Amino acid sequence: MSPDTMTHRKIETTAEDEIRAAVDSWVKAVVARDIEGIMSHYAPDVVSFDAIVALQFKGREAYRKHWEACLSMCEGEMAFEVHELAVAAERDVAFCHYLVTCGATKEDGEKQVGWMRATVCYRSIGERWLIVHEHFSAPFDMESGKALLDLVP
Amino acid sequence: MSPDTMTHRKIETTAEDEIRAAVDSWVKAVVARDIEGIMSHYAPDVVSFDAIVALQFKGREAYRKHWEACLSMCEGEMAFEVHELAVAAERDVAFCHYLVTCGATKEDGEKQVGWMRATVCYRSIGERWLIVHEHFSAPFDMESGKALLDLVP
Repeated sequence: MSPDTMTHRKIETTAEDEIRAAVDSWVKAVVARDIEGIMSHYAPDVVSFDAIVALQFKGREAYRKHWEACLSMCEGEMAFEVHELAVAAERDVAFCHYLVTCGATKEDGEKQVGWMRATVCYRSIGERWLIVHEHFSAPFDMESGKALLDLVP
Repeated sequence: MSPDTMTHRKIETTAEDEIRAAVDSWVKAVVARDIEGIMSHYAPDVVSFDAIVALQFKGREAYRKHWEACLSMCEGEMAFEVHELAVAAERDVAFCHYLVTCGATKEDGEKQVGWMRATVCYRSIGERWLIVHEHFSAPFDMESGKALLDLVP
């Protein structure tokens, strides 16, 4: 392995570790319903394709309002678990994707949790990895037009 | 601007151009219903989150079967137009996202076209950009559980 390749490998490994840490920090903020913590991960010009409501949300302020609505919609203890995380990262550009069980546990103990899919894209901006794009969704059934919320991997 | 920064900029611009060309080539193959052309863009271990049927498709062979089913489902002339394409690309890692009008025109001239969202993630493998992950979806309505297929940006 040439010294140049080794250096490049080193950069990639470190960047991947940083992305895994960023995902972990973001998930902790979601579970804690910490809106400031959640929003601190987004670039000002983030473009988000969320699972519900609209085709896209453009910019951190529009997305913040949507996040506030989502958190108020989810009653009880938040559930948000990342599965099958895959990461690709270089010096300034990175992406990851994962399956996620998300929902909430109501006060009577009833769990409302389903499997969904997430793709999150980062850029290194001012020494920090920030989310410039994310995409959450559930697939739908062509015949009924209904979101398939009871699928399991 | 330092020579190092200039070189880095040059790499990014060229890589972005290459990703735009790869998207364009993939779209042309989709519109032409050219299954070999479509599949030539995917890495062997691609993980795809498609808009319909399943949470994920793992590997090029599984995804090929799904593509064949999709193409046979869409009657008439294929419609697939990319809007608001955004690209981030470095030496070996890249992603892009866009809105897309997709569907088909039937033989009687009736168009069945809707807006959806796409995120496509690439790695440079053996001197070529290959899709290692893609995510297509429509958002859904929380109350009815129905996919929102009549939204416009």
